[in-house]
Amino acid sequence: MAAVTAANIGSTPSYGGDAYTARLQARVAAVFETPVSVYPVATGTAANALAIAQISPPYGGVYCYEAAHIVTDECGAPGFFSGGATLLGLPAADGKITAAQVAAAIAAALELGVHHVKPAAISLTQATEWGTVYTRAEIAAIAAVAERHALPVHMDGARFANALVHLGCSPAEATWKSGVDVLSLGATKNGALSAEAVVFFDPELAANFERRRKQSGHLWSKLRFLSAQLLAYLEPDVWLANATQANAMATALRQGLADLPGVRLLQSVDANELFVALPEAVVAGLEAQGFGFYRWPVPGVGPTGAAGVSIRLVTSYLTTRAEVDGFVAAAAQIASRS
Amino acid sequence: MAAVTAANIGSTPSYGGDAYTARLQARVAAVFETPVSVYPVATGTAANALAIAQISPPYGGVYCYEAAHIVTDECGAPGFFSGGATLLGLPAADGKITAAQVAAAIAAALELGVHHVKPAAISLTQATEWGTVYTRAEIAAIAAVAERHALPVHMDGARFANALVHLGCSPAEATWKSGVDVLSLGATKNGALSAEAVVFFDPELAANFERRRKQSGHLWSKLRFLSAQLLAYLEPDVWLANATQANAMATALRQGLADLPGVRLLQSVDANELFVALPEAVVAGLEAQGFGFYRWPVPGVGPTGAAGVSIRLVTSYLTTRAEVDGFVAAAAQIASRS
Amino acid sequence: MAAVTAANIGSTPSYGGDAYTARLQARVAAVFETPVSVYPVATGTAANALAIAQISPPYGGVYCYEAAHIVTDECGAPGFFSGGATLLGLPAADGKITAAQVAAAIAAALELGVHHVKPAAISLTQATEWGTVYTRAEIAAIAAVAERHALPVHMDGARFANALVHLGCSPAEATWKSGVDVLSLGATKNGALSAEAVVFFDPELAANFERRRKQSGHLWSKLRFLSAQLLAYLEPDVWLANATQANAMATALRQGLADLPGVRLLQSVDANELFVALPEAVVAGLEAQGFGFYRWPVPGVGPTGAAGVSIRLVTSYLTTRAEVDGFVAAAAQIASRS
Amino acid sequence: MAAVTAANIGSTPSYGGDAYTARLQARVAAVFETPVSVYPVATGTAANALAIAQISPPYGGVYCYEAAHIVTDECGAPGFFSGGATLLGLPAADGKITAAQVAAAIAAALELGVHHVKPAAISLTQATEWGTVYTRAEIAAIAAVAERHALPVHMDGARFANALVHLGCSPAEATWKSGVDVLSLGATKNGALSAEAVVFFDPELAANFERRRKQSGHLWSKLRFLSAQLLAYLEPDVWLANATQANAMATALRQGLADLPGVRLLQSVDANELFVALPEAVVAGLEAQGFGFYRWPVPGVGPTGAAGVSIRLVTSYLTTRAEVDGFVAAAAQIASRS
Repeated sequence: MAAVTAANIGSTPSYGGDAYTARLQARVAAVFETPVSVYPVATGTAANALAIAQISPPYGGVYCYEAAHIVTDECGAPGFFSGGATLLGLPAADGKITAAQVAAAIAAALELGVHHVKPAAISLTQATEWGTVYTRAEIAAIAAVAERHALPVHMDGARFANALVHLGCSPAEATWKSGVDVLSLGATKNGALSAEAVVFFDPELAANFERRRKQSGHLWSKLRFLSAQLLAYLEPDVWLANATQANAMATALRQGLADLPGVRLLQSVDANELFVALPEAVVAGLEAQGFGFYRWPVPGVGPTGAAGVSIRLVTSYLTTRAEVDGFVAAAAQIASRS
Repeated sequence: MAAVTAANIGSTPSYGGDAYTARLQARVAAVFETPVSVYPVATGTAANALAIAQISPPYGGVYCYEAAHIVTDECGAPGFFSGGATLLGLPAADGKITAAQVAAAIAAALELGVHHVKPAAISLTQATEWGTVYTRAEIAAIAAVAERHALPVHMDGARFANALVHLGCSPAEATWKSGVDVLSLGATKNGALSAEAVVFFDPELAANFERRRKQSGHLWSKLRFLSAQLLAYLEPDVWLANATQANAMATALRQGLADLPGVRLLQSVDANELFVALPEAVVAGLEAQGFGFYRWPVPGVGPTGAAGVSIRLVTSYLTTRAEVDGFVAAAAQIASRS
Repeated sequence: MAAVTAANIGSTPSYGGDAYTARLQARVAAVFETPVSVYPVATGTAANALAIAQISPPYGGVYCYEAAHIVTDECGAPGFFSGGATLLGLPAADGKITAAQVAAAIAAALELGVHHVKPAAISLTQATEWGTVYTRAEIAAIAAVAERHALPVHMDGARFANALVHLGCSPAEATWKSGVDVLSLGATKNGALSAEAVVFFDPELAANFERRRKQSGHLWSKLRFLSAQLLAYLEPDVWLANATQANAMATALRQGLADLPGVRLLQSVDANELFVALPEAVVAGLEAQGFGFYRWPVPGVGPTGAAGVSIRLVTSYLTTRAEVDGFVAAAAQIASRS
Repeated sequence: MAAVTAANIGSTPSYGGDAYTARLQARVAAVFETPVSVYPVATGTAANALAIAQISPPYGGVYCYEAAHIVTDECGAPGFFSGGATLLGLPAADGKITAAQVAAAIAAALELGVHHVKPAAISLTQATEWGTVYTRAEIAAIAAVAERHALPVHMDGARFANALVHLGCSPAEATWKSGVDVLSLGATKNGALSAEAVVFFDPELAANFERRRKQSGHLWSKLRFLSAQLLAYLEPDVWLANATQANAMATALRQGLADLPGVRLLQSVDANELFVALPEAVVAGLEAQGFGFYRWPVPGVGPTGAAGVSIRLVTSYLTTRAEVDGFVAAAAQIASRS
């Protein structure tokens, strides 16, 4: 916020010709240790859909997890931006598709030839929709399949900082050194007002992307307000610190809940999300006390019943240890009464 | 062919202003016992994609079988024609989705609200991709769900005549009386040179469809050549006779193969397609003798192995009893040797 | 800016479920004295293209000025958002198309029938690209033609406040009372960080617009940051005061320049833009002194030559009388020397 | 017709795997004396729109004559197929745009940068909408401008044979040797039932075009019926003979009408179309006698009034000398009476 306020002082060239945007370009290149082309936009949907439209023709197919955010939560944006490209969803209990799945799907597509969409790209969500994180080896294996078919690899990094902190490697290792070609770098969920960026690690892949952004209404005249947010965000004590805090609180939450009777952890807690099954009485009790979370069906675990109710818990950079402890204590108390 | 040749004689108004097209409109209305709007086009992909674009906005979702022809074999045409609409595939072992599935999927979509595509339409393939046929009750149950949400129902009738003959009901009962709003009426697979038609049972649903067809390059200047084919096709002794013959030969093939050792029927044979598993040696032997068919993976049956090889057999109006008998005899002979 | 900072305090529902967005809805309804549907977005291109996609099918045509901003400066956004709709540009020396032109163009289109795009909508820029302003009577006359053909009227109001101040009427009179159905209400050029709004005066016309915005990546998760800007903007002492100041400075500039030798005013100065022809020496001299403006070809006036050089001067709410006087004095001094 | 009937005999591979399509490829390469990629489709709108979508991105602009067939008569097909590309029309009294116009337009576009569509391609209609024909030098000059900006050149050859006969050069000289990259080769207007072809002279430019055709519903399963028509059409005694006859009859018509009082020729008669102004009484008289033609406004000549009524006359390969003489005689008789 301070960064945006500062950017409001004085008058600067419009449409990205400003100093903030120039500095952002250099900053991202430094963070990722390679030349990049960076395009700030205001929403994650825009970042993902623009990136996918850039790497898939209308007659292309993009391999991804069948319940990926781009499939279920962006109102068909990738299809709209690309003029008709198809998202080809693959099943994955933990949200992570595998190199073997992708290789098999591509082989099947090639058999169908011109009747089927052309294998065009692969999109991975990192951290995934189930709070898990692809390892570098998993990404590299998928990227190797992609390379055999000359397909670009996109990473939906709405929660990239959380994944990065979990992996404990450099941003470069987490992306292009593992075979990622284009990254939707999220900032909004981890502290920004409304700022994301499309980062191309291969400048050639970014050809004419500028016009694609403009045509879709995502080029701000006062672009400095986005760039300034991202500049401020990419300070280590902001993006990494925020993600570290959020991840730590998710881990604390997991540990706190683990000891309660009837609690079952449904996914590995790699980032800042937990999916747990609790007895109906506990869930209802927490809701009654005003805690905010969603009942969230998890494949293989019914939303209600003997197996309990599955819910999603999300921590953020603003989550405190006291809040975690309070939630756990409340759950414990309700559980002990029921 | 004779019909097209006849249409070549003399000179007539272009772009559908001809007498053939006018008569086709009347003929289809008579066949379906209701006022209709009929639009001839040259391919099934065009018929399906235009119909879907007409009933789903770019931000809409169309419920269908997850391996429907429109999903796997039209190179993303529905997404392209609609400007981004999403096909929402549902699993179905026999290719027939159910009213309960659709109802559940719509409910889940509505929970996600604006983030998810808007439930827009339902598309059923009749006969299905697995050679099965929806009963009238099954269609009506799905249409009832559709009606509760004001969704139009589309039928991909590339093999409509085969389904109709199997159902033994009137064209009207098989479509609008069971809740179908728009039909892709196939003729190419059942005898025409290249002619399909989009048939709207609700004229309001066809508003401006004429321009949609024109804009996609599917309005012929010499439309009479399509209309004449369809007029000739819709004679009972053509479309119904052709389908009856094809279906009968499929049934004969099923009966002939059923007695062979190691043969397993994988789907009900309702129309003119069989999916059967045969021992690898039999399949290889038939291929060696020059019989033309595809090895065709069927969910739940591996393409090769102890369970045998699954293949697809398609009969047509040109298939003769002698051909069927020859195929069965060859398979029996190979089986007895191995 | 203060409004955005305030909106940053505390935690609120996302995706427009916040109090700011609810209050904005009420505020805009009050300002326009009628129920409205209001959708904040970040750019003018998004506002215009989304509005046009909402009112024109892919096979539609939208009548507008041939060099309208939507035609020349939005990188084809209306065509992209609508899936192919055509902008049908009409000539206009002062940037204002007329009811007679539109009526004639529609008649010609209807003659071509299905081969031509369907007349779908009309889009007017207010204030225009030449700094002129449509009178209420001019708008109403065009809207009357539109109504005869059931076409919605869109107003690109990137400079709506400037036009409104010039007209001296109420926002309602300037829009829906004159026949406008949907307004792109600009705020960015007149003071906001990055905020525009699509305002529908007919709620039915806004059906499903929510999903259109989402699918194009223009629904912010933290929508309150846009809504808060617009709320602050729509205070009379902000939007009207800003526009009044900008317009007054443009008028002062016109008056100051009018007395200089060799100056020719090329358009009526109704809002905050001037198009004037000055001797080449004066233009070059002003550029040398660091004044920022564009050389701007005006139809009928060559960019250079005996007739002088045409330039565009834009004033804003930040422009001061001293700046105007300084510019005029500099021009006078250069002119007197040459 | 005989060719289609012959193609109906026997059974062949589908979707273009047939011998007819293979032979067509070789035939077109021989006719144009260069390797080509040929794609038969059923309509001219499909040929043009697919070709343009192949060479222009959604954010691209295609330079053409402002009243070109692709602009006014294809219901926005190029915008639809390309996902939003813009046709940038240039004025031309005789339907022929010039190299200088295109160069100036590109320069202006480049000044606007990312805000404007990207110059992407040039499309020429040959013969033009006014019955005139670009000379080889005119095409080459435009192609030279195109080459400087790396833009492909498309030729809408709905009446290509007529232009070719007029030019008296080889098909190669009329196209790729003059700088044309992709040709819509028309056959329907010159004798085929319904057959056009997209011909790429640069195979790289055709990359993935196969899927574009499939996705738009223009890949026939029984493609041999299109290929057979084109094969028969491209015999010299068909396509060239037909066009020669049509052109000769247009010339005869021009000569016959030239001597009548009050007749004014409005365009050069290079191919098989005439645009002439006749007295209203003569036009009305001809209409009363049942002659079929359109009253056709020509820029600069009012449709009615003292200057006469402008009409369009089109000859075809079926037009006979007797028909021409009969028309001229009828016109002369009416003129003498009035």
